[in-house]
Amino acid sequence: MERTQLLEVLAQVRAGTVSPAEAASQIGALPFTEIAHAVGSTVIDHHRELRTGVPEIVYGASKTPDQIASAMRELARTEGGAIATRVDATKAAAVSAQVPEATVHELARVVTLGTAPPRPRCARIAVVCAGTSDLAVAEEVSLVAEFLGAPVTRKADVVVAVAGMEAALPSVLGGLVDRPMIAVPTSVGYGVSIDGLVALAGMLSSCAPGITVVNIDNGVGAAVAAVRVARLAAAVPSEDAP
Amino acid sequence: MERTQLLEVLAQVRAGTVSPAEAASQIGALPFTEIAHAVGSTVIDHHRELRTGVPEIVYGASKTPDQIASAMRELARTEGGAIATRVDATKAAAVSAQVPEATVHELARVVTLGTAPPRPRCARIAVVCAGTSDLAVAEEVSLVAEFLGAPVTRKADVVVAVAGMEAALPSVLGGLVDRPMIAVPTSVGYGVSIDGLVALAGMLSSCAPGITVVNIDNGVGAAVAAVRVARLAAAVPSEDAP
Amino acid sequence: MERTQLLEVLAQVRAGTVSPAEAASQIGALPFTEIAHAVGSTVIDHHRELRTGVPEIVYGASKTPDQIASAMRELARTEGGAIATRVDATKAAAVSAQVPEATVHELARVVTLGTAPPRPRCARIAVVCAGTSDLAVAEEVSLVAEFLGAPVTRKADVVVAVAGMEAALPSVLGGLVDRPMIAVPTSVGYGVSIDGLVALAGMLSSCAPGITVVNIDNGVGAAVAAVRVARLAAAVPSEDAP
Amino acid sequence: MERTQLLEVLAQVRAGTVSPAEAASQIGALPFTEIAHAVGSTVIDHHRELRTGVPEIVYGASKTPDQIASAMRELARTEGGAIATRVDATKAAAVSAQVPEATVHELARVVTLGTAPPRPRCARIAVVCAGTSDLAVAEEVSLVAEFLGAPVTRKADVVVAVAGMEAALPSVLGGLVDRPMIAVPTSVGYGVSIDGLVALAGMLSSCAPGITVVNIDNGVGAAVAAVRVARLAAAVPSEDAP
Amino acid sequence: MERTQLLEVLAQVRAGTVSPAEAASQIGALPFTEIAHAVGSTVIDHHRELRTGVPEIVYGASKTPDQIASAMRELARTEGGAIATRVDATKAAAVSAQVPEATVHELARVVTLGTAPPRPRCARIAVVCAGTSDLAVAEEVSLVAEFLGAPVTRKADVVVAVAGMEAALPSVLGGLVDRPMIAVPTSVGYGVSIDGLVALAGMLSSCAPGITVVNIDNGVGAAVAAVRVARLAAAVPSEDAP
Amino acid sequence: MERTQLLEVLAQVRAGTVSPAEAASQIGALPFTEIAHAVGSTVIDHHRELRTGVPEIVYGASKTPDQIASAMRELARTEGGAIATRVDATKAAAVSAQVPEATVHELARVVTLGTAPPRPRCARIAVVCAGTSDLAVAEEVSLVAEFLGAPVTRKADVVVAVAGMEAALPSVLGGLVDRPMIAVPTSVGYGVSIDGLVALAGMLSSCAPGITVVNIDNGVGAAVAAVRVARLAAAVPSEDAP
Amino acid sequence: MERTQLLEVLAQVRAGTVSPAEAASQIGALPFTEIAHAVGSTVIDHHRELRTGVPEIVYGASKTPDQIASAMRELARTEGGAIATRVDATKAAAVSAQVPEATVHELARVVTLGTAPPRPRCARIAVVCAGTSDLAVAEEVSLVAEFLGAPVTRKADVVVAVAGMEAALPSVLGGLVDRPMIAVPTSVGYGVSIDGLVALAGMLSSCAPGITVVNIDNGVGAAVAAVRVARLAAAVPSEDAP
Amino acid sequence: MERTQLLEVLAQVRAGTVSPAEAASQIGALPFTEIAHAVGSTVIDHHRELRTGVPEIVYGASKTPDQIASAMRELARTEGGAIATRVDATKAAAVSAQVPEATVHELARVVTLGTAPPRPRCARIAVVCAGTSDLAVAEEVSLVAEFLGAPVTRKADVVVAVAGMEAALPSVLGGLVDRPMIAVPTSVGYGVSIDGLVALAGMLSSCAPGITVVNIDNGVGAAVAAVRVARLAAAVPSEDAP
Repeated sequence: MERTQLLEVLAQVRAGTVSPAEAASQIGALPFTEIAHAVGSTVIDHHRELRTGVPEIVYGASKTPDQIASAMRELARTEGGAIATRVDATKAAAVSAQVPEATVHELARVVTLGTAPPRPRCARIAVVCAGTSDLAVAEEVSLVAEFLGAPVTRKADVVVAVAGMEAALPSVLGGLVDRPMIAVPTSVGYGVSIDGLVALAGMLSSCAPGITVVNIDNGVGAAVAAVRVARLAAAVPSEDAP
Repeated sequence: MERTQLLEVLAQVRAGTVSPAEAASQIGALPFTEIAHAVGSTVIDHHRELRTGVPEIVYGASKTPDQIASAMRELARTEGGAIATRVDATKAAAVSAQVPEATVHELARVVTLGTAPPRPRCARIAVVCAGTSDLAVAEEVSLVAEFLGAPVTRKADVVVAVAGMEAALPSVLGGLVDRPMIAVPTSVGYGVSIDGLVALAGMLSSCAPGITVVNIDNGVGAAVAAVRVARLAAAVPSEDAP
Repeated sequence: MERTQLLEVLAQVRAGTVSPAEAASQIGALPFTEIAHAVGSTVIDHHRELRTGVPEIVYGASKTPDQIASAMRELARTEGGAIATRVDATKAAAVSAQVPEATVHELARVVTLGTAPPRPRCARIAVVCAGTSDLAVAEEVSLVAEFLGAPVTRKADVVVAVAGMEAALPSVLGGLVDRPMIAVPTSVGYGVSIDGLVALAGMLSSCAPGITVVNIDNGVGAAVAAVRVARLAAAVPSEDAP
Repeated sequence: MERTQLLEVLAQVRAGTVSPAEAASQIGALPFTEIAHAVGSTVIDHHRELRTGVPEIVYGASKTPDQIASAMRELARTEGGAIATRVDATKAAAVSAQVPEATVHELARVVTLGTAPPRPRCARIAVVCAGTSDLAVAEEVSLVAEFLGAPVTRKADVVVAVAGMEAALPSVLGGLVDRPMIAVPTSVGYGVSIDGLVALAGMLSSCAPGITVVNIDNGVGAAVAAVRVARLAAAVPSEDAP
Repeated sequence: MERTQLLEVLAQVRAGTVSPAEAASQIGALPFTEIAHAVGSTVIDHHRELRTGVPEIVYGASKTPDQIASAMRELARTEGGAIATRVDATKAAAVSAQVPEATVHELARVVTLGTAPPRPRCARIAVVCAGTSDLAVAEEVSLVAEFLGAPVTRKADVVVAVAGMEAALPSVLGGLVDRPMIAVPTSVGYGVSIDGLVALAGMLSSCAPGITVVNIDNGVGAAVAAVRVARLAAAVPSEDAP
Repeated sequence: MERTQLLEVLAQVRAGTVSPAEAASQIGALPFTEIAHAVGSTVIDHHRELRTGVPEIVYGASKTPDQIASAMRELARTEGGAIATRVDATKAAAVSAQVPEATVHELARVVTLGTAPPRPRCARIAVVCAGTSDLAVAEEVSLVAEFLGAPVTRKADVVVAVAGMEAALPSVLGGLVDRPMIAVPTSVGYGVSIDGLVALAGMLSSCAPGITVVNIDNGVGAAVAAVRVARLAAAVPSEDAP
Repeated sequence: MERTQLLEVLAQVRAGTVSPAEAASQIGALPFTEIAHAVGSTVIDHHRELRTGVPEIVYGASKTPDQIASAMRELARTEGGAIATRVDATKAAAVSAQVPEATVHELARVVTLGTAPPRPRCARIAVVCAGTSDLAVAEEVSLVAEFLGAPVTRKADVVVAVAGMEAALPSVLGGLVDRPMIAVPTSVGYGVSIDGLVALAGMLSSCAPGITVVNIDNGVGAAVAAVRVARLAAAVPSEDAP
Repeated sequence: MERTQLLEVLAQVRAGTVSPAEAASQIGALPFTEIAHAVGSTVIDHHRELRTGVPEIVYGASKTPDQIASAMRELARTEGGAIATRVDATKAAAVSAQVPEATVHELARVVTLGTAPPRPRCARIAVVCAGTSDLAVAEEVSLVAEFLGAPVTRKADVVVAVAGMEAALPSVLGGLVDRPMIAVPTSVGYGVSIDGLVALAGMLSSCAPGITVVNIDNGVGAAVAAVRVARLAAAVPSEDAP
C-alpha cells in the first residue's frame, strides 16, 4: 500500500467517511491482497522508486521479447528511460525489431532506452574485474550504475570487484583499500568452479574483512548496492533517517 | 611492505647507498617474504589500520586463551584498546583470569579491553535481527561496530540485518528502506537449515535489490563493512581517492 | 488388487470354488505381480480415483505426444474429461493436431479435454504467487484444482503460495493467516537459487509454523493436497474414517 | 502492529488528535520498528494466537533452562498452559528443578505445564511412524497436537506420517488413503541417509500425489499444519474468510 | 499380515462366520493398521524370517542398552540366538552387565548371544578389505554372515569387498574375478573423503561391471545380500520361485 | 598381461632363454605398460570374457557412430554377436546406415548385432519397474541380460528392481521376497529428485536388508551383476573357486 | 609492475627526477591500477613468461573465434608460436578460416600455430590414461607439454595420469612408481560420477601418498605443473632460487 | 608380490621345480591373495620404501596409542627412525608414556622416534602458509619432509603453500614464482568455508597455472610429493626410468 493510498484512507477516517474498523480491515488486508494481485498480469510498480530509491529494472531472463519491449516502452514513457538486463542475443534482436530506438549492449546482455531522469547526487563507483571472461558482468554493473545516476570512474569511493574462478581479486584488493567493497562472483570456470559457487564461497570466506557479496552474476544487485552507498557518501548524513 | 619501509628503501636509493637493482629485488621479493614470515610465530600487524582503516581484531576461535590474552594486552598497550571475538565461555574465563580488567560479553562471545582510540567520524548504524536466537551475532556486530567508533542506534544510515532459518527479514526490510543494507546469515536452524546455508542462500537470492551479504555468523565482517560505509557517509566525498 | 477383485476371490472362497490356500496365494502374490505388470505397457489405472479420491492426471514430461493424446482420449471417453501437465509448446502443438478439441494452456503447459465429471463438494482454494515468473506454476495449480472440482477464489479456506528465488512470501503470509497453507517452490532464479532448491529449503525453514511444502514446480501435488483439505472442509467430519 | 493498536491510532485520527501524516508514519514504520524490538530481549508474543490461531510454543533448542522455565511460567500464568519442545534431558532436569509441577516427556524431549485453554473444535488426527527410531518425533507431533486441542486417534481425518531412512511409508500410505497427509522426515539413518535429507527428498519426490512435507524432525510444524486442517474440517466453511 | 493370519480369515470366510465384505475390510486395512502399530512400542517381528529368510538383527545405534539387552534375550529365548550391531563400547559394557553370557566383539561393535539355529544350506563367502581401518566393518560383515549360517573363507563363491578412502579395491578385484561382488564403502577418511561418500561414489562409478554396492558402513546389508546369493548358489534352482 | 602371455614368458624362463631377472622386469612393468597402451587407440579387449566372464559391451555414449559400428562389426566377426548401449536415436540411425543388419531397440537405446554365442548355464532373472518412465532402463537390463545368456522371466531367482523418483519399489519388494535383489535408480524425476540422486540414496537407505545398488541408469551393471548371481545359482558350487 | 618498469622508476629516484614519495605512490598504486586495466580490453601479457616461466596459453572456452584468432596471430608474431585450448569444433572451423596455417587437433580441442621458441631444458614426461574416453584430455596434456618444450615419452621422470569414472588408475600406479605423479580427473561418467567430481575426490583421497591433483579436465594445468618439475629435473639445482 | 618373492618363483621355474602353469597361478592369484591378507592383522609393509621410495608413515588417526607405539618401535628398530602423524594430545601422552624417548610435536600432532636413515639426495623445499591458523599443517609438512631427508628452507626449488579460508595465497604466489608449487588446503574457517572445501576448490580453480593440490589437511601427501620432486631435482635425470 503506497503512502498516498494510505493517506487517502486516513483522510477518509478523519473526514468520518470511513470508520476506523473499516480502515483497519483495508490496511490489514493489504499485504495479502497486494500479493494476490500478482496472479494474472504483469504489473509495473511505478511507486517502487519512491519507496526504495531504485526504479524498476526489467529482468529479461524470464520474459518474452514482447514483454520486455512493452515494459521498456511503458517505463520510458512514464519515467523518461528504461533498462533491461539478461537479454540474450536472440531476445535482444527481437526487442530491437520492436523498439528500434533502444540500444543493445551485446556483451553485457543489456538493453537501454531513452534518457534516465535526474537521480540523487552520487559519489563515484569503480568497477574492476579479474579477467576478460568477467567483462560481461562488469559491464552490466557499470551500465546499471550509470542508469541510476552514478559516475563510474577508475578512482572512486566505492569499489565493485567482479571475479570468477577462485576469485582471489577481492581478497587482494581488500588488503589494499579502505573503501566499501562489493564483490560479484561470476559463473566463469569449469570443473569444480563451474557455476560460480567456488567464487562465491571464496569471496564470503575472504580473510580481508569488510567485503560484502551478492549472488552469482548479479550485476544489478551490486550496482544498486554500490549506488546506495555512493548516494549516502554524497549526501549530508541526516539526523532522523528511518 | 609498509609505506614507511618502502620510503626508507627509496631514500637509500636516492642517497645512492642502495642500487636500483638491489631495491627492485627487495621490493619484488616482499610478498613472498612477508607471507613466509608467518611460519613460526604469531605476529601482530600494527600497520594494518593505516592500510585498511581497520585495526587488528583478535579472532579467538583458533587461538588458546594464552594467545588471546597476550595479543589483547599487547594491542591495548600500543593502541589503547583491544577486542577479541569467538571467545567461548571456557576460553573467556581463562582469559579473564589472566586479564582481570577485560570485560566479557557472554552472549556475543566477545572480550573487550581498555578504551578504543578515537576513530574517523562515522554515521549511525542500525542492527536488527529476526529472533532471539540471532541476538548473539547481532550483539557481536554492535560491539565490533562500536569498537570501530560507530554509533549504533535504532534509526540509522546503514542497516545490518541478522537472521537465521529462512532469513526472510532482509527481503521484507529491503522493500521498505532505501539505505545500504548488509545481511548476516546465522547458523540458527535445524534440518535443511542447519548451519546457516539456507539463510545465506536466501539472502543472496532476495528479490529486494541492493542487499549485500557476508559469511555465516560473520558479525565482524558485517561490522567492518557497515563502518566503512558509515565513515564514507560522514565524510566529504574526496576527489582523488584511490 | 482392487476391492472388487478381492471381493470376487472371497466370494469364491465362500462358495467353496477356491480354497483358502489358493486365495492366500493370489492375495499374497499381488503386490509383486501388479508391479511386474508395469514392464511392457502403459496401463491407465481407472480405479485410482476410487482408492485415493484423485483421478489419473497425465504427466506429459516423460511421454511422447502420441502417448499423451491417446491417454487423454481414453480418459475423456471413460471419465468425461482429462488433464495433462508438463506439456511443452512443441508437444502441445502435436497433441493439438491429434486431438483438436483439446484446450492448450500455454503458460501453464497444461492441456485439458472434455468436461470433468462431478466431484465431491469442496471448499474454496486461493492461489497466490510472488512474481510474474511464478505465474506458470500458479496457473498449473489453479487448472488442476479446478479440474478436481475446487473453486479457486481470492478469499479461501486453503491457501497455495507459489514462490521462487528466496521464497519469502509464505513466511510473510504465514504470520498473517490462520488457514492451512501449502507452499510450492519454483525453479525461478539464478546463481545460488538456480533450480529452486533455495526456495524449497527456505519454505521448509520458515519461522511461521504450519506451512507444508511440495516438490519444486509441483503444481499438481499442491493442487491435490489443497483439494483434499478443501473437500474435508466441505464435508461433515466422519466418525469412522480410516 | 496488533489490530488493537491500529484501531487506537485510527480512533485518534478520527478524533483529530493525530494527523493523517503522523498516523501514516506510525503505520509505515511499524514493520521495521517491530522487528528492531527483537534486539535486546526475549519478548513473548501474546497476540500471536489471535492472528495465527496458534499460541506460542517455546522452542527449547536455542534457550537456556532459565529462559525456558520463565517463558513457560509466564505463558501458563496468562494462557493457562504452556508447552516447550527440543528440551534435551539435561535441560529438562534443570527446568524441572525450577518448575516442579511441569511434566517432562523424555522421549519426545517435550515439557508441558498446566492445562491448555479450550481451543476451537477440531477433527481427529492420526500419527503413524515407520519404526521405533521415529517414535520420538511422532510423540512430539502427538503432544503438540493435543496441546492445540486435537484428538489424536488411530482412525482420523488427517494423517501425519513420520519416517526416516528412505521414508517409503508415506508413498505406501499415499496410495491407500484419500485424506490430507503431512509427512515428517526424521534424522534417523547413517551413511547417505544421515541427517534426514534422503527421507525429506524421498517424501518430496513421492509418486503418490497430495503429500505435503515439513522440515526434518519438525514435529511442531506438522502438528500445527494438521491442527489447521482438522479445525477447518470441524468447522462450517465460511463464506468470507481472508 | 502374516500368511497364517490371512489363512485364518479365509477359513472363517469359508466357514461363513465372516462375510466377504468384512474380510475385505480386514485385509484392505492391514497395511495401514500394521504400520500404525509401530507407534507406542518396540515389537519384535518373529515372522520376518519366514517372509524374507532373514531373522531380526538388533540395530543398536538407536536403542538404549536396556532395549538391546531385552530384545536379545527375547530373541535368544525364542530363536536360540541373537545378534546386535552398532553397539559402541559404552553400550556394550552396559549390555554385558545385564546379559553376562553375551559375547562382545569390540572392533566390530557387535554383540552375540546363544547359538544361531540351523539355517538353509549356503555357499562360501569371502570378505576382503583394503586397509586396517576397514577391519571393523569387515568383521561386522563376517559375524553377521556367520550368524546367518554362511561359511566365511578365503576362497569363495561370493566376494564382499570393504574399502574407504578412494575405494580402488573393488575396481581392481572386479577386473580379476568372475563371481558376484558386493562392495561396502566405509566412513574412513578425512578431507573430501570424510564420511565415506567418495568411497561410495567411486564404487558406484567403477569401470569394472557387475559390482553392486550397499550404504556406507552397512556391514549388515552386505552380509544379508551375500548370504542370499550364497544360499541360492547352494540350492538347486527352483522352477516356480516367486 | 593375459595368462597366455604370462605362460609364454614362463616357458622361456623354463627353457633358459629368458633370465628370471628379465622375466621379473617384464611382469613387474606390465600394469604400467598396459595402461599406457590405452593412449592412442581404441583397443578391443578380446580376453576380457575369459577373465571376468563378461564379453565387451560397447558403451555408445562416448563414441562416434563410426566407432560404434566398427567395434560391433569386429566383435560380431570374432564372437558371433555384439551389443551396444547408450546409443541415442541420432547415433542409432547412423550406425544402422553402416550396419543395416543391426537391430535398434529405440526405447532402451540399445543396438544388437548377430547371435550371441552360447554362454554358461544361467538361472532366471526378473526385471520389474515402478512406472512407465522407468521402462527404458528396464529394457536395457533385459536386453543385456539376454545377450549374456540369462532367461528373463516373471518368476525368477534374482530380481532387478528399476525405479526413479523416491524409489519406494525396492523397499516394498524387499519386505516380500527372499531372493537376491539388485536395485537400479533411474534419472526420472524433477525438482529435488532430478538426476536420480534421491532414488539412489533412497535405495541405499532402504530398511529392507539385503538390497544392493548400482549407479544411476546403469542397466548394464545391473544385468552383469544379476547374470553372475544367476550363473552361480545354476552351477554346482565349486570347492576350490578363486 | 614488471621489473623493467620498476627499475625505471628506481633509476629516476636515483637521478633525483622522481621523489621517494612519488615513487612510493606509483609502486603502491600498482596492483589496484593493473587489475583495473582489465576492464575494457583483452590485453596480452607478454611479460608473463619472464615472471612465471610459462607463456600465455589462449583459453578458448570464453572467447569468440575472432578473439582466439587475433590473440594467436599476435602471439605467433611476437613469440614465434601460439597454442589455444578448449576450442570446440565449431570455433575451430571459424579460427581455421581466419588463420589457415593453424593446425586443429580435433580430439584435444586444441589449435596450434607456428613454431614454439626454444624453451629451457626439460626432462621427459609420460602421459597415461585409463580409457578411450579420457584420450581427449590426455592429448591436451601432451600438446601443451610439447609446446612448452617437454619431450613426451612412455618412460619418463614425471607421470601425468588422466582418468574419469572412479579414477582408480592413479592409486594403482601410485603404488608402483616412485616419480612425481600429477593426476587429472576427467568429466567422463554418468549418474553419480557425472562432471568428474567423483574422479577428483577419489584422486585426492588416494591411499597412495604423493599424488597431486589439478582441476577436472584441466590438461593445461597438469602440463604446466609437469613441465615445471621436468625443467627442475633437467637443471642443476640452484643455490639462491627465490 | 615383492620382487624377491617373484624372483624366487621364477628361479624355481628355471630349476624345473615349479611348472609354468603353477607359477602362473601363483602370480595371477597374488593381488587377490595379498589384499585378503589385510583382514585380521596390522602388517607393516617393510618393502614399501623399495617400491615407492617412501617408508611407512604411521597414520595415527585410526589407531590406538598401543598400535601407534608398537608400530613406531618396530619401525625404529628396523629402519632407524619412525614418524607418526594425526596423533592428538591425548594419544600423544599415551604414546609418550610407552615410548619415553619419542618426541611429541604438539602443534603438528606429530610424534617422531630415533634418527631417520640416510635418504636419497634432495633439493630444498619451502613451506609457506597464509595465517597462524594454518601453522599446524605447515609444521606437519615440514616434519615429514625433513624425516624423508629434505632440507626445509626459505628459498627453495619446490614450494608447498598451506592455506585455509578462501586460500588466495597460492594464486598470489603462483603469479610470482616459476617453481613447482603444491597447495595444501586446510580445514580452517567457518560458515561456508568450514571443513576446507572452499579452500580446496579455490586452489583447484586458481587462474595461476601449474599449481597442484592435495587433500584437505593432507600434510603428509604434500611432503611426499614435494620430496619426490626435490629428489628428482637433485639427481641427474636418468635415461631409462620407468
